[in-house]
Amino acid sequence: MTNQTSFAPFTPMPSMDVAARLPRLREVLADEPCDILVLSNLTNILWLTGFAGSAGTVVVTDTECTLITDGRYAFQAPEQIAAAGSAVEVQISRSAKEQNQMLLATLEDGAVVGLEAEHISWATQLSWAEKLSQEPVPINGVVEKLRRRKDAGEIARIAKAAAIVDSALEEIFQVLASDATQYAEQDLAADLDHQIRRRGASELAFETIVAAGPNSALPHARPSSRKIQRGELLLIDVGAVYDGYRSDMTRTFSLGQPSEAEAEIWQVVREAQQLGVEAVRAGSTTGAIDEVCRHRIKDAGWGEAFMHSTGHGVGLDIHEQPAVSAKTKEVLQAGEIITVEPGIYLQDLGGVRLEDTVLVQPDACLPLTKTPKFLTL
Amino acid sequence: MTNQTSFAPFTPMPSMDVAARLPRLREVLADEPCDILVLSNLTNILWLTGFAGSAGTVVVTDTECTLITDGRYAFQAPEQIAAAGSAVEVQISRSAKEQNQMLLATLEDGAVVGLEAEHISWATQLSWAEKLSQEPVPINGVVEKLRRRKDAGEIARIAKAAAIVDSALEEIFQVLASDATQYAEQDLAADLDHQIRRRGASELAFETIVAAGPNSALPHARPSSRKIQRGELLLIDVGAVYDGYRSDMTRTFSLGQPSEAEAEIWQVVREAQQLGVEAVRAGSTTGAIDEVCRHRIKDAGWGEAFMHSTGHGVGLDIHEQPAVSAKTKEVLQAGEIITVEPGIYLQDLGGVRLEDTVLVQPDACLPLTKTPKFLTL
Repeated sequence: MTNQTSFAPFTPMPSMDVAARLPRLREVLADEPCDILVLSNLTNILWLTGFAGSAGTVVVTDTECTLITDGRYAFQAPEQIAAAGSAVEVQISRSAKEQNQMLLATLEDGAVVGLEAEHISWATQLSWAEKLSQEPVPINGVVEKLRRRKDAGEIARIAKAAAIVDSALEEIFQVLASDATQYAEQDLAADLDHQIRRRGASELAFETIVAAGPNSALPHARPSSRKIQRGELLLIDVGAVYDGYRSDMTRTFSLGQPSEAEAEIWQVVREAQQLGVEAVRAGSTTGAIDEVCRHRIKDAGWGEAFMHSTGHGVGLDIHEQPAVSAKTKEVLQAGEIITVEPGIYLQDLGGVRLEDTVLVQPDACLPLTKTPKFLTL
Repeated sequence: MTNQTSFAPFTPMPSMDVAARLPRLREVLADEPCDILVLSNLTNILWLTGFAGSAGTVVVTDTECTLITDGRYAFQAPEQIAAAGSAVEVQISRSAKEQNQMLLATLEDGAVVGLEAEHISWATQLSWAEKLSQEPVPINGVVEKLRRRKDAGEIARIAKAAAIVDSALEEIFQVLASDATQYAEQDLAADLDHQIRRRGASELAFETIVAAGPNSALPHARPSSRKIQRGELLLIDVGAVYDGYRSDMTRTFSLGQPSEAEAEIWQVVREAQQLGVEAVRAGSTTGAIDEVCRHRIKDAGWGEAFMHSTGHGVGLDIHEQPAVSAKTKEVLQAGEIITVEPGIYLQDLGGVRLEDTVLVQPDACLPLTKTPKFLTL
């Protein structure tokens, strides 16, 4: 075990404008078929109020916003919602029964209650329906859509998460360059994750993918006990969490001299990814970004081998709006953060994917991932 | 970064009797108000079929059991369900639309379909209700109840997960004994997690808790950037995952000479935990185990400071049936695996919790956690 102290001291981060979020939500709620919105998705609750506990419900009416949680969060909840301003009130329940009573007390009689249908379980909906005088209505994606545009504080946190991974990878590359074959995939993943945590990430953004040789051809490979070999392709897909916000990036290398075919698919993916990044700016559509990546790969004859979409939004969730795929036509706005990650996967040869987390700007794209792209390690 | 190779070689594990599970499920389904059960909980699907993908649905009828998943798992799914025998059939869909068609094709017309109400979203239930000629019915906890009794293969995997943690902690203790104050809580958690991963755990069973001094008084503390101090209580709550199965354990120490009050609460928790473990055997009730722990702590005058339940089942999930609490009266059966984890939390002093993962045997309790319990580190 290493005992070095943390690499990345907490730098002062621009603050997030949490107080601006509730007014934005109320504005769009006017168009929804409910009088009151009940939030049960904890990520949406975190975004709206700053509350980061593992259990809680938020009720949003025209005039009130109430967070109801339990005694475990009696001290933490008021602290965490401070940034949301006085508009959010906390109520602490001592039992599940009291929690239900508090919830019902926040609702005006006869009001139509909207529930987050994609997040609450059918069992929970049944218990709500039993208690309400009016049938609840399903509401989908309202807060998620507002979460697309990030403020300066959110952008800084995602950039920091990306920088932590860049720094950890730099150290891992040195070890790999001296001898990669000492590693099983799962051990390399463990060491990389450790470097990331030691740099101040609270956790990994998702289960790190380290896939060598034939495993690199599986877009969702899990690190195995198989030893990494010289001459293989090595794909690393990894992200960090910093103050709740996530990053996402992928690099693929050849360990030693690549074959001609490996060099060729790597170069095609490199160009496709670059074209995709260059197409990102406010006003571009997600479908158009997918198209420029896909076109370059199709053109080279590997269209069938790029069997996933080009990217996705990143923020408090690792996959959030907007999806960047052939079927979507979302217009990008400045302040959105997405991934651009084309790939080619050939069962005999292995797979290549290159991915950056990038910020949409008015007239350009700013990659937050800074790790260079090179083929031979 | 350390480059030692993995500590724990894959030892041959007794195999799990996956094929026995579907007949057990069909037996209890006879008492449920549905003709067909649709499983959407991926842990229940893993238990029933062996399939470990991140997306899939299983339809269980009187005569068929069909796993429907997508192209990402075309190779993996047939391999993983091999242990379930020929009773489980795999269908691979190429689109969401085709997946729905496949699902509907498995259902006999007019059959009453049961859905896992606590696991499917309201949105999914609405989409099912639209397609079915009969209203679906909510089904809860049927597979979860069957998962309580572990077979020899499952027990071996949980014991292995516990042994990995024991071994990793042994190494961490040596570092802590020489100098604990070099560590922030989050760095110690990162190093411990790394030791666990390097011993062959696929992941951590939950977010490791490392809580020193005042933070130890919070039962659900998250590791912070606060440095650990000499003379503080240090609480570590950690588990590993081995081949899908989880372990869970907690130890609390004094870093250096404990105060009289610290020594006293530690001793009371030690005795309460020991009494709880000694009460575990087939035929005991969960409520009785909670009671012996709680009684010892109440007797010492700290009843209010033990504000959580005594334990929970552990297996593929970190919290599964049965709950071990004052309100429950489940009769334990041989082969069940639970935790016994009383604690005392005092806001000024800090908290003490001691926890083992234990196996219920016909006439005794076998702790799978082997790390010794001592106060002074």
